[in-house]
Amino acid sequence: MRLWAFISAVYWVSFVTYFILWRSYKHVSNLRAAARSTSGVKPQEFAMLVRDVPIPPPDQTIKDSVDSYFRALHPDTFYKAMVVTDITKADKIFQEIEGHKRKIAHAEAVYAESKTANRSEGTRPTHKTGFLGLIGKKVDTIEYCNEQIKDFLPKLEDERKSALSEKQQRAAFVFFNSRAAAASASQTLHAQMFDEWTVAEAPEPREVIWANLPRKIYDRHTRQTVVYLIVFVTVAFYMIPITAISAVTTLEKLREKLPFLKVVVDQPFVKTVLQAYLPQIALIVFLAVLPTLLVSLSKSEGIPSQSHVVRAASGKYFYFIVFNVFIGYAIGSSLFSALEKVIKNPPGIFMTLATRLPGNATFFFTFVALRCFVGYGLELSRLVPLIIFHLKRKYQCKTEEEVRAAWVPGNLRYNTRVPNDMLIVTIVLCYSVITPLILPFGVAYFALGWLIAKNQACMAS
Amino acid sequence: MRLWAFISAVYWVSFVTYFILWRSYKHVSNLRAAARSTSGVKPQEFAMLVRDVPIPPPDQTIKDSVDSYFRALHPDTFYKAMVVTDITKADKIFQEIEGHKRKIAHAEAVYAESKTANRSEGTRPTHKTGFLGLIGKKVDTIEYCNEQIKDFLPKLEDERKSALSEKQQRAAFVFFNSRAAAASASQTLHAQMFDEWTVAEAPEPREVIWANLPRKIYDRHTRQTVVYLIVFVTVAFYMIPITAISAVTTLEKLREKLPFLKVVVDQPFVKTVLQAYLPQIALIVFLAVLPTLLVSLSKSEGIPSQSHVVRAASGKYFYFIVFNVFIGYAIGSSLFSALEKVIKNPPGIFMTLATRLPGNATFFFTFVALRCFVGYGLELSRLVPLIIFHLKRKYQCKTEEEVRAAWVPGNLRYNTRVPNDMLIVTIVLCYSVITPLILPFGVAYFALGWLIAKNQACMAS
Repeated sequence: MRLWAFISAVYWVSFVTYFILWRSYKHVSNLRAAARSTSGVKPQEFAMLVRDVPIPPPDQTIKDSVDSYFRALHPDTFYKAMVVTDITKADKIFQEIEGHKRKIAHAEAVYAESKTANRSEGTRPTHKTGFLGLIGKKVDTIEYCNEQIKDFLPKLEDERKSALSEKQQRAAFVFFNSRAAAASASQTLHAQMFDEWTVAEAPEPREVIWANLPRKIYDRHTRQTVVYLIVFVTVAFYMIPITAISAVTTLEKLREKLPFLKVVVDQPFVKTVLQAYLPQIALIVFLAVLPTLLVSLSKSEGIPSQSHVVRAASGKYFYFIVFNVFIGYAIGSSLFSALEKVIKNPPGIFMTLATRLPGNATFFFTFVALRCFVGYGLELSRLVPLIIFHLKRKYQCKTEEEVRAAWVPGNLRYNTRVPNDMLIVTIVLCYSVITPLILPFGVAYFALGWLIAKNQACMAS
Repeated sequence: MRLWAFISAVYWVSFVTYFILWRSYKHVSNLRAAARSTSGVKPQEFAMLVRDVPIPPPDQTIKDSVDSYFRALHPDTFYKAMVVTDITKADKIFQEIEGHKRKIAHAEAVYAESKTANRSEGTRPTHKTGFLGLIGKKVDTIEYCNEQIKDFLPKLEDERKSALSEKQQRAAFVFFNSRAAAASASQTLHAQMFDEWTVAEAPEPREVIWANLPRKIYDRHTRQTVVYLIVFVTVAFYMIPITAISAVTTLEKLREKLPFLKVVVDQPFVKTVLQAYLPQIALIVFLAVLPTLLVSLSKSEGIPSQSHVVRAASGKYFYFIVFNVFIGYAIGSSLFSALEKVIKNPPGIFMTLATRLPGNATFFFTFVALRCFVGYGLELSRLVPLIIFHLKRKYQCKTEEEVRAAWVPGNLRYNTRVPNDMLIVTIVLCYSVITPLILPFGVAYFALGWLIAKNQACMAS
């Protein structure tokens, strides 16, 4: 009787979930269609990304070969091709010019400040030209930077021209004269061999990761495999290096190696706290660094657009938290506490799990509630960004532009937000039948989350 | 030292294999490109297959909705659409007419034979109109059939017309006015929702499996899942029903159930043979029926073309023989013969396998050699088809056409040929390092196979 009640509850929850998934699939699909059918011209809708362009014959540039190839295949709809060019050098010069411009603006603000304060003359700001402004000749900042810019401008022009003709990479954006032609072409095979002329939808211009575009297909596959391997090892065995680090760097050893810490470490209060929390601190640092690490790993896979990198990183992060929070805690706590029983009676593992797993519900219950109240509270207050902003404004920012740059709220961090929400979905769905009381907390989590995400997004825009 | 020799041999074999695979990929790709760029117009190159056409509004037929949908999406390249129509009824009538025509031809041949033999009059062949020609009114075959055809022809015409207008199915072939447009369209998404307007390359006309075309996408997916499940159960547990059958149908029980067998079964010689070989006979029958079973399973997945059905069936057959011959024998024989050791010392399983597996090489050695000499010999002689042909010619075929139909050699049976060859590849590659002597036999197998397949193909065409 109890079995049937649970089974029918499982089916009920599953079918409701499928129904809601189907509804939201339709909803999202409609949103996407509406966004795509707005009349504004977006360049990515008329373009496709071509990679793995084969080496052209010696009398052709890459641009010529791309042009002729696609003009032959799409005689009516081909508009033009833009070959990806390696402008690292030109970009370096450009960045230097921009840096000098910022320095001038900063220096002028400082100069104006000094004028009003004491003398009408003011002190013209100066700096030294050597390493980090500490050594070398002392120069007037504003004049010096203006001269530098004048020097750099013709160099930039030269570098640009030579890059356009000589440093073409084996990747290109091909533009068509209609949306339909571009969409259709980006889904069509363009070459007999799989490793040449691979095409894809063009990402938005601001999202392109230029460094990844010229990577060859074999390079991409190798990188992907290596990255997956690293992620697997990280997900499964991340506790090992952390335990090892905290074992090696006990307080005693730290004192030996870094004697200047002795003054701090020898105080009994600090000593106790550190000794008790060193492993936890290592863990917290690891967890704080992990999302960034995953993003940079995903980026090195050779993915051409920023959003796809974020998506790949959030997938990896989801594996990590599901494996370590959901499966790790559920199986771990049940098995360890009942290890003796299982060893004595191996086939009884199902029975053991069945009696022990519901006990975990309390933990996940607390987990969801904490995420709901404390997690969102922290996010709403945005305490850390506030502190950083005020520090920056006090000690660093002089011009209006610099203040604005410091105030920018950053992106919504999808790469941790989505997997965390998915973890809550997983937990709530899995325990919804065993302890239905978790459901209202799940609903509260997503209802609050919807409001808060809307608020943050409005502030950000 | 020995370890390194084996490891380097493994790498050597692997890299040679990769190299040859890469070469043959290029070769096959070139062959395919050459075949596609011949100038002959093939209808499938200008068409694509559309399935899951949504139900049109009540004032439109399906043909209208397909026409307008694709004319809007491909205004310049759309040529015309042909909606799949359910002509089961018309086809039944057509088959009956054809049957009567064949009967007339057969009867005329019989009539002519009887004339020359005894009297110049001859006996006009007759048959009865009832069940299987055994009961009912006796009629003159030629006259009767001619009348029947006259009756059926107008019915066929009516049925055809009504089918074309009323029995349109929700699938269609869409034709374009250029090869490139058709190729590009068949690779492009055509609808916002994934379950409408799914497109695919059009198969060759003679290959289309018409019954599968109107199946909906959910139907197809469900069928595929069910078929995969059935195949998995068949591959993994096929021995269970066979053992069960041979256990239940012992000779004693057969005698009880089918008393008319008593005369045969009670003879001591037949009894011994049957009792000894009944399980083997069940196994042989199962193995003989299996490829046909797999083809019909694959067909019921909803695959639209005959070659894809054959490909799907050969994949399934490959799993079957690899699991049962290669893995089954290798692991089974090694483990069973050393079961005691493994139970006493579970972690020693690797050691046990390492010492026992090379012993299996002899079996596979014999297996490849047998396939090479006996298998090909049987295939070349085509003994079974020859016997069947002569039986047919003697007792059944009267007209020239019937003889030709009996002589047709049938297809090359890719659905068993390819997986069997792949099994040999797997065996030879796996044991090439342990017993390199298997390599010449593998080479001989494929060299002979190449010659023989060429011979059979020439005869067939």
